[in-house]
Amino acid sequence: MSNAAALPPVGSEVAPCCPPLTERPLTAEEAERTARMFKALGDPVRLRLFSAVASHAGGEACVCDISDVGVSQPTVSHHLKKLKEAGLLSSERRGTWVYYRVEPAVLAAMGAILTKAAGG
Amino acid sequence: MSNAAALPPVGSEVAPCCPPLTERPLTAEEAERTARMFKALGDPVRLRLFSAVASHAGGEACVCDISDVGVSQPTVSHHLKKLKEAGLLSSERRGTWVYYRVEPAVLAAMGAILTKAAGG
Repeated sequence: MSNAAALPPVGSEVAPCCPPLTERPLTAEEAERTARMFKALGDPVRLRLFSAVASHAGGEACVCDISDVGVSQPTVSHHLKKLKEAGLLSSERRGTWVYYRVEPAVLAAMGAILTKAAGG
Repeated sequence: MSNAAALPPVGSEVAPCCPPLTERPLTAEEAERTARMFKALGDPVRLRLFSAVASHAGGEACVCDISDVGVSQPTVSHHLKKLKEAGLLSSERRGTWVYYRVEPAVLAAMGAILTKAAGG
């Protein structure tokens, strides 16, 4: 799959849809969409890679930037794709490499679901 | 397993340990602990049950309060135990029923990891 220059429209399909968890029980559909994002962060290696991208200079990183998590480059690529499919990263190809960047709006919405729940 | 009256000391073992995801790559140990909590919310049924507890009157609920998620009572109990093991719920037995309550500090810390990441 070659993603040319433009960023894919990540938000529409995968952005958090849901009220704070204290407000009312989620519907099945809401839970399906939201659980998908939490699940993406529910793997230790994937979470480490996510933090490596999020904390990288410039807020983006390619596979070539990430070497110290102790997994092979194909494994890194696999996990970054999973994070992208979950809507947590966007990507852009530049030359040889695909650069990944955190989707701030999605993370902020996930955080708000939890943080407001905590206040309730 | 009978949990008598007192709440278990949830925080010490399972509370989030980690800086915002933008600050630096998580260590393997930090990722292990944090991923565990995200994973617990990464199942749609479990997430619905969690929101049912979090949004229930008084901020707590027992299995007897949750009937509309479309899964059996043993399944509800199973998932609530998993959420407790992940540190997201605490529990207290009163008579026949175990009551579950959201752990606000844990949720707030999870939210902060994400929300600060989003701002970074």
